[in-house]
Amino acid sequence: MKENKYDNEVFFEKYGEMDRSQKGLMGAGEWPALRKVLPDFTGKRVLDLGCGYGWHCLYAVQNGAESVLGTDISEKMLSVAEEKNGHEKIEYRLCAMEDLDFPDETFDIVISSLAFHYVKDFEPLAANISRWMKPGGYFVFSAEHPVFTAYGTQDWYYDADGNILHFPVDRYFYEGERTAVFLGEEVTKYHRTLTTYLNTLLQNGFSLKNIIEPQPPEDMMDLPGMTDEMRRPMMLIVSAQK
Amino acid sequence: MKENKYDNEVFFEKYGEMDRSQKGLMGAGEWPALRKVLPDFTGKRVLDLGCGYGWHCLYAVQNGAESVLGTDISEKMLSVAEEKNGHEKIEYRLCAMEDLDFPDETFDIVISSLAFHYVKDFEPLAANISRWMKPGGYFVFSAEHPVFTAYGTQDWYYDADGNILHFPVDRYFYEGERTAVFLGEEVTKYHRTLTTYLNTLLQNGFSLKNIIEPQPPEDMMDLPGMTDEMRRPMMLIVSAQK
Repeated sequence: MKENKYDNEVFFEKYGEMDRSQKGLMGAGEWPALRKVLPDFTGKRVLDLGCGYGWHCLYAVQNGAESVLGTDISEKMLSVAEEKNGHEKIEYRLCAMEDLDFPDETFDIVISSLAFHYVKDFEPLAANISRWMKPGGYFVFSAEHPVFTAYGTQDWYYDADGNILHFPVDRYFYEGERTAVFLGEEVTKYHRTLTTYLNTLLQNGFSLKNIIEPQPPEDMMDLPGMTDEMRRPMMLIVSAQK
Repeated sequence: MKENKYDNEVFFEKYGEMDRSQKGLMGAGEWPALRKVLPDFTGKRVLDLGCGYGWHCLYAVQNGAESVLGTDISEKMLSVAEEKNGHEKIEYRLCAMEDLDFPDETFDIVISSLAFHYVKDFEPLAANISRWMKPGGYFVFSAEHPVFTAYGTQDWYYDADGNILHFPVDRYFYEGERTAVFLGEEVTKYHRTLTTYLNTLLQNGFSLKNIIEPQPPEDMMDLPGMTDEMRRPMMLIVSAQK
């Protein structure tokens, strides 16, 4: 079952209070690392899977994309996208990414930001993405790091006084459903290994261009909890070419 | 300073009692995964960095390699290599891999098994390896996984009764020296992130062919502690082509 947590009132509102929701790309710690590996959008047809508020869609258009299709499972997210990041060259479409279908070689560029850990099966999706893309096109995504998703709760391990001891890893090779706590709400996510992420791409005709575990940027280090993010890898950014 | 732990009497003897020392490749849990991504050795000139007992050198020769150079920092390891895995097509050379030097394009294939985590700086070594290799050649290595090296001790985190709770990750983005306990002895190893391993290859002219976190093989699951190895990634195997 595809969970649509972002259409939950409480969750949606809490998400709206996050820095990345309020400030857009500049509020997302991984954005400097992601931007560096984005391809040239000039004249390109772009697909954004799990586009959320649409920040990356607008960025693509502002950087020359001919057209952008942003898709998301959440109606609430897309209504914010229309409002905050609407543009005549962007179409926002309500659809789970697992249910999308396009003719072969429809897009030049496929991007996805922090959405694949909500997808149960990566393999069929990666096969579809490869098929939808033109040869030579770029596929760039971020996802939660396998280290971050393995244990399940996505929380630090603390001592009796509430101080962080370390980050726990467990069940690494047991892929599948995890119940994480995000914004105080239980959310279903899917853990998969790094091997699965990367080799699935290689087996679907992609060559890997960059694999990056983004570190917190210098100018965000004074934000609460940010120095702790030097202690664990939370995200994975991959750029690949078909 | 390059540590030469394997020439320490006590450590060397304990190493000799391990399954991988006694049984060779068949005693190494990651061997089935590594073997799958090894290239065709037929007629190739091979370099094995940190060859230890020389099991992989002999395997290369048995699979058609024209010549193999096995290098290691430990005299004791190389004397076992000569004894157990000597062959007229194999030369064993005593040298730290950081100090090796060869003319450009000397080798077709470079392999290294579980040795790079003893090397302080991966970047200059990777640059050398790339330079020493012929275009189209394969570079295949295993190393301890960044998840395994990050915290430092390489031990599980236990409850008061000595039961494993989980595996701890910490200091992930702080690369460098760690003091691990291996075979009851303190050993200096070097932690580096996955980003560093993979992007260093990409930046030195390699394309990535396989990235594998080997799981314990089915037929070893009854060995003590082996099912626990499903809970954390201990090793990383990478195959790349120049």
